[in-house]
Amino acid sequence: MKLRRSDRMVVISNYLLNHPYELTSLNTFAEKYESAKSSISEDIVIIKRAFEEIEIGSIETITGAGGGVIFTPSISDRESKEIVEGLRDQLSESNRILPGGYIYLSDLLSTPSILNSIGRIIAKAFRDQKIDAVMTVATKGVPLANAVANTLNVPFVIVRRDLKITEGSTVSVNYVSGSSDRIEKMFLSKRSLKAGSRVLIVDDFLKGGGTINGMISLLAEFESELAGVAVFADNAQEKREHLSYKSLLKVTNIDVKENKIDVEVGNIFDK
Amino acid sequence: MKLRRSDRMVVISNYLLNHPYELTSLNTFAEKYESAKSSISEDIVIIKRAFEEIEIGSIETITGAGGGVIFTPSISDRESKEIVEGLRDQLSESNRILPGGYIYLSDLLSTPSILNSIGRIIAKAFRDQKIDAVMTVATKGVPLANAVANTLNVPFVIVRRDLKITEGSTVSVNYVSGSSDRIEKMFLSKRSLKAGSRVLIVDDFLKGGGTINGMISLLAEFESELAGVAVFADNAQEKREHLSYKSLLKVTNIDVKENKIDVEVGNIFDK
Repeated sequence: MKLRRSDRMVVISNYLLNHPYELTSLNTFAEKYESAKSSISEDIVIIKRAFEEIEIGSIETITGAGGGVIFTPSISDRESKEIVEGLRDQLSESNRILPGGYIYLSDLLSTPSILNSIGRIIAKAFRDQKIDAVMTVATKGVPLANAVANTLNVPFVIVRRDLKITEGSTVSVNYVSGSSDRIEKMFLSKRSLKAGSRVLIVDDFLKGGGTINGMISLLAEFESELAGVAVFADNAQEKREHLSYKSLLKVTNIDVKENKIDVEVGNIFDK
Repeated sequence: MKLRRSDRMVVISNYLLNHPYELTSLNTFAEKYESAKSSISEDIVIIKRAFEEIEIGSIETITGAGGGVIFTPSISDRESKEIVEGLRDQLSESNRILPGGYIYLSDLLSTPSILNSIGRIIAKAFRDQKIDAVMTVATKGVPLANAVANTLNVPFVIVRRDLKITEGSTVSVNYVSGSSDRIEKMFLSKRSLKAGSRVLIVDDFLKGGGTINGMISLLAEFESELAGVAVFADNAQEKREHLSYKSLLKVTNIDVKENKIDVEVGNIFDK
């Protein structure tokens, strides 16, 4: 299909947005849109500049025979902070307190536009890490892991707290459920994670860290490595040992009597 | 920020792709990129043409005081069919058969590029319906519902089979679990769905239909309406009464002894 330059720029930028972290050769575009490779090269220069101007990501050009372009999504610091501050304000709403000092999060973690932004913010925070897969635990973490995996263009794996027949063979580990101090089990389908993967663990709410530690010990069972831990919010009142993580939000106080939650921006923007 | 036309087209098309089904006034772009409204109008014409050429969606222009542009994502019939046929071939792989005649699907439903395509195909199949929310049941349906909700730019709600304290007040219904003929319970958080919503139900694998019927009865409890049912795959060997749905794939035979699955394209492309 032969396209004009202006049209080509729209369709090539759309292609790159939908294929993050993938190397695409300029010949692919040249053939698809019946244009000279030099024209495509010029298109890329303009798209690269536009992407950088609005900080939606960078385009890297790799020269040589196996070369091409790779789009890495990003998000501006200003936009990230605005989004996280907006989430902090929403999380501070008093009607989120549930009996037992839990916090209702499901509305925030089921809105596509919020999830997309969170995905981009977390992906940016781990941009120096090679990540092959995103791991989370069912059910609440799934949309979050999905969003991060989407930005990173890698698969996500779902650890379960119950054993489902539809998963086939599973590997299980024991973990200490922090809230109850009980020993629980978690399961991961054997074929869902390749050995040697570098894995980013993502979860919605970090309390004692038992669930995260359970997932870390699962990684060892799969001969895989931890690339990092990211959570939507953590409870700063909990005691936790030796767990390194990045959080978007930090809950510093839940006052059930006064029906008040104190929330601050987490450590995700710390250098 | 003042941008050149070529750059403006890249950033405006990116904006529209990320804000499907939302009305944006041309003034928003004119102010943001310090351009005359007439120039933005011309940009939109070019973007619209490019979007239509590669069939990634349509742009509607609404004139008048409250007017603007709305992007509706789509996918070409050719691309949809290629994707579904590719999935059919993957699903036909014999190593997916699990004991009990279940099929392993998790790898397909945890790959972002596949999920994005499925989301666009399902959204297109229900384009004549007004949809306010997408509903599914934990855990397997979540990535699928997430993908469809993403394309439609509406929230998704997750029905649970167990009662979690972090959901707050819930409404529950009984349903017949087809595979076991047992009566089970499913739960939905009271505040997760607004009354009067039109809801698209999405699930990964349709067997007897008990789970879907359970969700339909939940809709009544929330004074909401069914907009449609979409499943990734259905088992054509199961008997089902009065359930209207669209499926991407149809499993016509599972032969555990011979280790063979027969899969066809489902009814999603039927007129």
